[in-house]
Amino acid sequence: MSIGVCYFPEHWPRDRWEEDVQEMADAGLEYVRMGEFAWSRIEPQRGEFDLEWLEAAVDLVGEYGMQAVLCTPTATPPKWLVDERPEILQEEADGTVRDYGSRRHYCFNSPAYREETRRIVSKLANHFADNPYVTGWQTDNEFGCHGTVRCYCDDCATEFRDWLRDRYDSINDLNETWGTTFWSQHLTGFHEIDPPRETPAGHHPSRLLEYHRFASDSVVAYNRLQADILREHNDEWFVTHNFMGQFPDLDAFDVAEDLDLVSWDSYPTGSVQAKENPTVDEYRAGDPRQVGLSHDLYRGALGKPFWVMEQQPGDINWPPHSPQPAEGAMRLWAHHAVAHGGDAVMYFRWRRCREGQEQYHAGLRKQDGSPDRGHADASRAAEELFDLEPVDAPVALLHRYDDLWATSIQPHSPDFDYWDHVGTYYRALRRRGVQVDVIPPDRDPSGYAAVVAPSLHLVADDLADRLESYVAEGGHLLCGIRTGEKDPYNKLPDAPQPGPLADLLGATVDRHETLPADFETRVTYDGDTYDYRTWAERFDPDGATVRGEHTGAVDGTPAIVENEQGAGSAIWSGVWPGADLADALVESLLVRADVERTPVLPDGVAVAERDGYVWVTNFTGSPVSVDLPAGTEWIVGSNPIDGFDVGVTDAGLGAITVDTD
Amino acid sequence: MSIGVCYFPEHWPRDRWEEDVQEMADAGLEYVRMGEFAWSRIEPQRGEFDLEWLEAAVDLVGEYGMQAVLCTPTATPPKWLVDERPEILQEEADGTVRDYGSRRHYCFNSPAYREETRRIVSKLANHFADNPYVTGWQTDNEFGCHGTVRCYCDDCATEFRDWLRDRYDSINDLNETWGTTFWSQHLTGFHEIDPPRETPAGHHPSRLLEYHRFASDSVVAYNRLQADILREHNDEWFVTHNFMGQFPDLDAFDVAEDLDLVSWDSYPTGSVQAKENPTVDEYRAGDPRQVGLSHDLYRGALGKPFWVMEQQPGDINWPPHSPQPAEGAMRLWAHHAVAHGGDAVMYFRWRRCREGQEQYHAGLRKQDGSPDRGHADASRAAEELFDLEPVDAPVALLHRYDDLWATSIQPHSPDFDYWDHVGTYYRALRRRGVQVDVIPPDRDPSGYAAVVAPSLHLVADDLADRLESYVAEGGHLLCGIRTGEKDPYNKLPDAPQPGPLADLLGATVDRHETLPADFETRVTYDGDTYDYRTWAERFDPDGATVRGEHTGAVDGTPAIVENEQGAGSAIWSGVWPGADLADALVESLLVRADVERTPVLPDGVAVAERDGYVWVTNFTGSPVSVDLPAGTEWIVGSNPIDGFDVGVTDAGLGAITVDTD
Amino acid sequence: MSIGVCYFPEHWPRDRWEEDVQEMADAGLEYVRMGEFAWSRIEPQRGEFDLEWLEAAVDLVGEYGMQAVLCTPTATPPKWLVDERPEILQEEADGTVRDYGSRRHYCFNSPAYREETRRIVSKLANHFADNPYVTGWQTDNEFGCHGTVRCYCDDCATEFRDWLRDRYDSINDLNETWGTTFWSQHLTGFHEIDPPRETPAGHHPSRLLEYHRFASDSVVAYNRLQADILREHNDEWFVTHNFMGQFPDLDAFDVAEDLDLVSWDSYPTGSVQAKENPTVDEYRAGDPRQVGLSHDLYRGALGKPFWVMEQQPGDINWPPHSPQPAEGAMRLWAHHAVAHGGDAVMYFRWRRCREGQEQYHAGLRKQDGSPDRGHADASRAAEELFDLEPVDAPVALLHRYDDLWATSIQPHSPDFDYWDHVGTYYRALRRRGVQVDVIPPDRDPSGYAAVVAPSLHLVADDLADRLESYVAEGGHLLCGIRTGEKDPYNKLPDAPQPGPLADLLGATVDRHETLPADFETRVTYDGDTYDYRTWAERFDPDGATVRGEHTGAVDGTPAIVENEQGAGSAIWSGVWPGADLADALVESLLVRADVERTPVLPDGVAVAERDGYVWVTNFTGSPVSVDLPAGTEWIVGSNPIDGFDVGVTDAGLGAITVDTD
Repeated sequence: MSIGVCYFPEHWPRDRWEEDVQEMADAGLEYVRMGEFAWSRIEPQRGEFDLEWLEAAVDLVGEYGMQAVLCTPTATPPKWLVDERPEILQEEADGTVRDYGSRRHYCFNSPAYREETRRIVSKLANHFADNPYVTGWQTDNEFGCHGTVRCYCDDCATEFRDWLRDRYDSINDLNETWGTTFWSQHLTGFHEIDPPRETPAGHHPSRLLEYHRFASDSVVAYNRLQADILREHNDEWFVTHNFMGQFPDLDAFDVAEDLDLVSWDSYPTGSVQAKENPTVDEYRAGDPRQVGLSHDLYRGALGKPFWVMEQQPGDINWPPHSPQPAEGAMRLWAHHAVAHGGDAVMYFRWRRCREGQEQYHAGLRKQDGSPDRGHADASRAAEELFDLEPVDAPVALLHRYDDLWATSIQPHSPDFDYWDHVGTYYRALRRRGVQVDVIPPDRDPSGYAAVVAPSLHLVADDLADRLESYVAEGGHLLCGIRTGEKDPYNKLPDAPQPGPLADLLGATVDRHETLPADFETRVTYDGDTYDYRTWAERFDPDGATVRGEHTGAVDGTPAIVENEQGAGSAIWSGVWPGADLADALVESLLVRADVERTPVLPDGVAVAERDGYVWVTNFTGSPVSVDLPAGTEWIVGSNPIDGFDVGVTDAGLGAITVDTD
Repeated sequence: MSIGVCYFPEHWPRDRWEEDVQEMADAGLEYVRMGEFAWSRIEPQRGEFDLEWLEAAVDLVGEYGMQAVLCTPTATPPKWLVDERPEILQEEADGTVRDYGSRRHYCFNSPAYREETRRIVSKLANHFADNPYVTGWQTDNEFGCHGTVRCYCDDCATEFRDWLRDRYDSINDLNETWGTTFWSQHLTGFHEIDPPRETPAGHHPSRLLEYHRFASDSVVAYNRLQADILREHNDEWFVTHNFMGQFPDLDAFDVAEDLDLVSWDSYPTGSVQAKENPTVDEYRAGDPRQVGLSHDLYRGALGKPFWVMEQQPGDINWPPHSPQPAEGAMRLWAHHAVAHGGDAVMYFRWRRCREGQEQYHAGLRKQDGSPDRGHADASRAAEELFDLEPVDAPVALLHRYDDLWATSIQPHSPDFDYWDHVGTYYRALRRRGVQVDVIPPDRDPSGYAAVVAPSLHLVADDLADRLESYVAEGGHLLCGIRTGEKDPYNKLPDAPQPGPLADLLGATVDRHETLPADFETRVTYDGDTYDYRTWAERFDPDGATVRGEHTGAVDGTPAIVENEQGAGSAIWSGVWPGADLADALVESLLVRADVERTPVLPDGVAVAERDGYVWVTNFTGSPVSVDLPAGTEWIVGSNPIDGFDVGVTDAGLGAITVDTD
Repeated sequence: MSIGVCYFPEHWPRDRWEEDVQEMADAGLEYVRMGEFAWSRIEPQRGEFDLEWLEAAVDLVGEYGMQAVLCTPTATPPKWLVDERPEILQEEADGTVRDYGSRRHYCFNSPAYREETRRIVSKLANHFADNPYVTGWQTDNEFGCHGTVRCYCDDCATEFRDWLRDRYDSINDLNETWGTTFWSQHLTGFHEIDPPRETPAGHHPSRLLEYHRFASDSVVAYNRLQADILREHNDEWFVTHNFMGQFPDLDAFDVAEDLDLVSWDSYPTGSVQAKENPTVDEYRAGDPRQVGLSHDLYRGALGKPFWVMEQQPGDINWPPHSPQPAEGAMRLWAHHAVAHGGDAVMYFRWRRCREGQEQYHAGLRKQDGSPDRGHADASRAAEELFDLEPVDAPVALLHRYDDLWATSIQPHSPDFDYWDHVGTYYRALRRRGVQVDVIPPDRDPSGYAAVVAPSLHLVADDLADRLESYVAEGGHLLCGIRTGEKDPYNKLPDAPQPGPLADLLGATVDRHETLPADFETRVTYDGDTYDYRTWAERFDPDGATVRGEHTGAVDGTPAIVENEQGAGSAIWSGVWPGADLADALVESLLVRADVERTPVLPDGVAVAERDGYVWVTNFTGSPVSVDLPAGTEWIVGSNPIDGFDVGVTDAGLGAITVDTD
C-alpha cells in the first residue's frame, strides 16, 4: 500500500525541486504524479518542444527512490493551438461556444483535436519510453469535469450519425427501435439526425439516451486513442485515468476496459456538500458511506485494487464552503481508502499553488513551502500502511450508467435521484460492515452470495435470464423501484413492468406514482411500519408472497414481495425505502445469503475487512469503543478509537461491535 | 352530453385497431379524436402522401357508430421539412434558435411555414371532405404551449412592422401614442422597429404590450388560415382548437372568433401544482375552482357549450409530482365539466404510449392494452350523463388579455399575478354556487344581474360609457385594484386613476403601494376587519360612500368605496382582498343584484346548476351531506356524497346546503 | 445647502413649462437638472439638430432665479444611430448582443460610439457655452447600470490587448506576473488575449482582475472624453457624474479624478431591499447606515461635499416591492444627506412620467401635475437647510475597488460579500456618531486619528510602508479578514498572509476557513465571547499580543491580535465580527485614538456632526429623546424627535445621547 503525491515542478523555481523531492522521500512517499496540464510548458509554440525539465524532474524522483506517474496534458490545449484550430472548441445545446480560458475546452469528437492529441501523446510517450522511473500514465484529467462530456457541435453531429449507422441496420430499424411515430419524429435518413440542441419542449427519450451513450462512447474512444499510443511505446507502463466520484455523464466501466488500473479523485469535504444539510462532522471529514461508494465503484470497475489519484490534502477551493478538515482527517481518508481496496493514495497537491484558479486549494505544503497540516497526516499514513491482498466482497451491487441516464432523462419527480436511491441500499449494506462490489449487470454475478439491484431499469431478456439463473442456483437478489420499467432503448415494453423480470420477481406493477415530501408515505413490512419516500409502486402478485403493503389512502395493496425460485430467492421493494426499511430489507437478504456482518454501525463510523484485517474508521468527532476478543489485537490504534481516528485489528468482521460512549 | 377519447392508431399495430375501436364503442364513447401530430405518417417525404391508414381508422370509428374529430398535424413539422426550410424555426429574444426535436418548432409568421401549412391542411381537408364520419376538426394543438407564442425572428420583425403600419396613421402617431420621448425612444420610421430582443434594461411597456398583441394576433391569423381552408372544403364541419387552462400569452377570445366550438385540455392534478402548497386532496383530484375558472372562460369565449378536448385519464407525466388520481376522479371531472357547461369530455388518451416523450402519461388503457383505472370511470360517466340545455349564468366576470399583459409587463410586485387576483373574486362567487360567465369587457353586459371586474386596467372612454350605462340601468358592478390605471396603450392618463371610470366609481386613487408578505395588511369593511395582500390603493372619494378604511400605519384612509348611480351601484375595492373580504364583497353584490346562491360551500366542494339540475361535485376525500327538500330527488348518486363522488339532483340551487360531517 | 429637482420639459406640453418652473422656484428649489436621455429630441435624425427647446427651458429656469445642470444624452443613443452603426452595441460573455430598446446599449470601447459621443457632446457644449444659467454638466447617466461596465465584444478585445501592452514590458512579463503556467495558460503574444468569454470552468483570477480593471478604466476614459470636451468649451462649468450607491463594477475614485464634483443617486427604500429581511421601518424609510456609507464614499472620493443628484421623491418602480415612503421621509433624507456632507439634494423627478419604463416612479408632482407627498417635503427641506462648512471626519475607512473585485472573483464562500463586510465596521463607527471618510488606501492617511481597513486584500510593499509610517507616527489601525492575502495581481505571495503587512500586524495566518451559517462560530475578545460569521483565520503571532481566541472545536488558537508599534497601534481581527464584536473592536480603536463619539445609538437613528451642528435623523417610526445641555438649542425640530423626523442642534457631538421611549 503506497502513499504518493501530485507535483507540478513547473510551478516552482528549479532550485527548489531537489528539496521538495527529498522531503517527499523523507515522508515515505512512493509515487509522484507529474506533467498534468503542462502542454504550454512542453510545447510553448507549435513544434517547439521542451521536455528537458520534465525529464529532469522524473529523474530526480527516481533518484530519490520513488516512481513517477506521468499525465498526458490534453485537458488544456494552449491558446496558440486554439487560435490555429478554433473548431476544437465545444458547443452548448443553444449554440454557445465554450471558449478558451479555463480547461477542458475541447470536443472529444473533433478530428482536429484527435490529430493534435496523437501528436502530443506520441511525443511524450516516445520521449519517456525508456525512462526507468516512469511506471505508468494517467490519460488527460477528470474526463467530463465541468459538464464537458456532451457537446453539440457539428463534429459531434457527424460522429453521432456514424455511430448510429453502426448500431442500426437502417434508418427504419432506428425508427422502429426508438418509436418515432410519436410527435412526427420519423426520420428519412441518418443525415437528418442532429445532437439534441435547444428545443421548445423535451427531446425524445430514446434519442436522448442514445446521445448520452454516444457522448460517453466518444470519451471512451478518445481515451483509447491515448492508451493505444502509450502502450505502443512501452507495454509495461500501466495506463490509468482519474475518475470523479459518482459522476453521472460518463460510463466509467466502459472507459475502464482500456485501462490497467482505475483511479479516482477523492475530496470528502467537497462531495459531502452535495448532500442536504451535512453535519458539522461531515463538513470536517466527509461521509464514509458516500466516499466508500465511490471506492467500491472504481474497485468494481476492473474488479481489482484502485488508486486514489487525488486525495484531498487540506482545505479546498471548489465547494460552496471551505471548512478546514478535522485534525487527522487526511490520514483517516488514506486508511479508509485502503480498507476499501485502494492500493495507493496520492495527495493532491504537494504545495499550494501561488497562481491561477486553485490558489485556495491546500497542498501538503503551504504556499511558502513550509509543511501544512496534511504533511504529517500523509507521512503517518505512509508509515502505518502495509501490504494487503485485494478485497473479497460477498455482495454485488448492480449499477449501470444506462439506467442512470434513462432515469435522469425522465426522473418523473424532482426528488428522484439515481445515486441517492442506489445509496439507500449501499448504506444499509455498509452499516453492517459488508464489503460490496459495485459492478455492471452484464457481469457474471455467480460468485456473490447476494446481489442488490436498486434500479435495474432497462431490461432485456438476456439480463433477465442471467438473474434467473443466478437465483435458481441459490443466489439471493434484492430489487427496488423502477425495475424493468423500460426496454434497452428507453421505450415501454408491451407488457407490464418489470417486463422480462416478471417471472423471476413473481409480480407485476399495477401502477406507480411519485409523491411530494409532504405526503405521508408508509408501508408495512414483516409486521412493522416504515417510511418511504418519493416513489411508490403497487404490485399485482403472480406467484410471489406479499411481504409488505401500502398503508394510508389506498390501504393494503402489495408494496413488497418475495419470490422463492430454485435454490434462491428474490425480494422486490416497490418503494424507495427510508433508512430503517432499507436496513430491514438488507438484513433479511444477508440472513438468507448467510453473509458475515456486524450489528448496525453508528452513523459516520465505517468498518471494512480486507485480507483478514478489519478497519474501524471513525468519521465522527466523538470516540467509539470496540472490544476485541481474546487473541486478537490492534495493529494500528487502540480502543477506544478517538474522533477522526482509526483502528486496524486482526480480529474478523464477525467479532466487531462498535459502541458510542 | 358525450364522452370521447383521443386515439393514435398510428402508434399501434393495424391488427389491434378493431379491438380498440370496439372497446371504445362498448364503453359508450361517442367521439374519437385522431390525426394529431401525424404529419410524418401522412407525408413521410415531401409530396409522398399516405392517408389510407387514417381513412381506414376513421371508417372503423364510423362503422362502430362513433364520430371522428380530426386534427391538423401542424404542431409537428417533420425533420425533412425543417431541413429543407430551416427558416421556419422560432428564435428566442437572445437570438437562440429553437431547433427540431420536440414540437411547436415553427414561427407563426414564417411565410414558408404558412405555405407548408396551406399545403398539408388542404390535402387533408380535400381527402376527408366527403367522409361521413368526420364531424369536425381541431386546428393544430395547444397553440403557444412551451412558450411559443412570442418569437423574435426576422420574419416576425417584418410582420410586426406591417402590423404596426396598419394600426397607426404614421410613425409620429405611434411616437405620440406610445410616448417615445422617454429614454430617446423616438422612431423615424416603422422600419426601425424590431421585436423586443435582449436588452440591458427593460423594454418600453407600450412596445411590449403591442408586441404581446401582435404575437397573439399572429396566432389568430395562423389559426384563421387553417379554419378557412377547412370550411372551404366542407362547411358542415365544426372547427375547434384545444386551448390550455389559464394560459397567459394568447388571446383565446380572439382565436375563438374563428371557431365554431371552443375546447380546452384539462389536467386537474397537473395544473393544481402551480398553486402554493396544494393539499393532499388537491394533489389527488385538483381544485374545482381552478378547473371551473377555465371551464367558464372557454364557455364564455363563444357564449355556448365547450368541450374538454383532453381530459386527464389517470397519472400524467409533466407536473413536478405525479401522484395517482383519487379513486373515481376521472368520472368526477367529467361531471364537473358538464355542470359547468361542457357538452363533451374527451379523455386523453386511449392507451399509454410506449414510445417518445409521454410514456409516463396514462391512458384509459395500460401500455399493454389492458384497462387502466380511467376506463371504468369514463364508461360510468358515459352512462350517467344526459342531454342538457346550456348554462345560464347570472353573473359576468370581466377578463381581458390586454389587462393581463399590461399588468404582467409591469407587475410592480413579485407577488402580483393577474389570474390569482381574478381567481380571488371568482372563488368567492363559486363558493356560493353561482354560475359565472367569463367574458371580455367589450361584450354587452346588460343581460347580467351583476358584473365583477377584478382589474379593468386599460380603460378608454367607450368602456367607461358602457359600464356607466350598465349601472345606470340597474346593473351592479364590483371593481378591484389597478382599475383604470392606464390607457389602452399602456400609458398613464393625464388624470388620476381610474381615469375615465372616476365618475362611475365616485373616487380617485391618491396613491398606491405594493407590500411584501410580512407587512400587516388590514382594512375595515362594514364594521369588520379583514386581511388583504400585496397591493393597496388609498382613495380620494368624490361622490362615493366610504365603506372600508385602511388600518395600521396610515389609519383611516378610504380603501373601499360604493357609489349608487341611477338604478344600480358600483363598489370599488382598493385592496387585493383575502378570501373573507372577497366573500363579504361578493355577498353584498349578490344581495343587491338579487342573485340566487347557496350558503358558503366547503373548500373543495363545487355546486353548479345547469338546465334545472344541480351538481354537487366533491373534490375532497371526506363525505359531505346535502339534504334535499321534499319532492326533489337524486338523479345521480345520493346523500351523503362520498369523497371524490358526485350527486346530481333536480332540486334548485336555492335548496342546496352542503355540510361536512 | 441647496434643494433642486430633475426635470424633463420634453415630456410635457410647452405651455405647461412656465407653471412648472414657477412652482419649482416657489418651493425654494435652486437647481434644475435637464437634458438627460434627450438625444432623439436633440437630434431626431442624423445632423438635424433641435436645441431650441432645451435652451428655452434653460432660460426659463434662469429667469426664475435658478441654475440649470445639463446632462449629456449619451446613455441613450437613438435607434437611427444604432441602425447605422450596430457595432456600438455591447456583447455578453456568451456572445449575445445587447440590443436597442432600453438604455445603456453601447460599448465604452466602441470607436464608432466614441466618435458619435464627441459629436453630440461638442454640439451641446458649443451651444450652451455662453448661456449664463448653465452651471455645470452631468456626463451620461449612472455609468454601469444594468451590468454594463463589462462588455465582451471584439472592440473590447482590441482595447484590452492595447491596455495590457501598456502595462507590461512584454508578454513574458505578463506571463510571470499572472502566473500562466497553471493549466497551460502561457501566452505567446498579446494578440492571444480575449475578453473572458464563456468557458467550461472559471477563468484565471489574474486575468479576470485585469479585465475588471480594464473595463473600469474604459469607463474612466469614456467619461474623460466627455469632461475634456465640456471644459474646452467653458472652464467655469463644473463637471459631475451621478454614481450609484455601493455599485461594484466601476472604480468611482478613478472616475472622480476627472470630475469637479461627485454626485450620486439615492433611493433608500429601493437599496434597502438588497438587505436580508428589511424591517417595516426600513421598507418605509431605508437604513441610514446603508445610505450613509454611500454618502461617505462619494464625499471621500474627492474629499469634498457631494451632491445627491437623484433623491427618491416618493414610491419607486424598480425594487421588488414598492411601499410608500413614511410621512416626511423625503425631508428626512435631505437632512441626512446634508449632515453627511452633501451640499445639494436634487429630487428625481419633478413629475411622474406618463410614458415609458418609469411610469411607476413617483415625482414631486403626480402624473396630472398636482402636488404629490414629496413636494411639501422638498419645500420644507429647502426652507430649513442653511450654509455649512464641509464635514471634518476623524476616521478613515479604506476601500479599494481592486480588493472588491479580487474577493468577488474568489469569494471562497457564498456568504462572503465585500460591501457587507466593510459595512460591519462602518456601522460600528456610525453607531457612535463618528464621521467617516471612505478613501482609497493610496491616499495619505496621516490626518486621521484612526484608520479602519476591513479587507486590504491586495498588498504590495508601498502600501505596507505607508501604513507602517502611519502607525509609527501615532496612528491607530484596525484590520480585518483577508488582509494581505494576495499580491496586486491576484496571486499568492511567497510568504504567509498578510504578506508585506506581517511586521506591522505582528502575526501571520496559519490557516483560514469559511463556514456555513449553521456552524457555531465564536471567539473571545478581552474576556468576553462573541459571534462571528462566514470567515475565520487562525494566527501565528510574531510580536503581537493575542487579544482574542477561537472557541469550539479547535480551542484557543489566536483570532485577534494587537501590535503596538512606535507611537501607534494595529489591531487585526481574523474573523468577520458580529455587530457586538465590531462594536467592541471599534470602541477600543476610538478610545486609543481619542475620537469624540456618542454612546451606542439605537438602530435606525443616525447622528452626524457638520460645522459644529449635530443632526439627529430618526429613520424609525418611534420617537427618540435627546436632552440638550444648557446653553445649546435646537435649530431644527425639538425634543423628542418623532418617528421619521429630524433634529438639528448646535450642541457638540459629545453632548448627544439618544434614548428610545
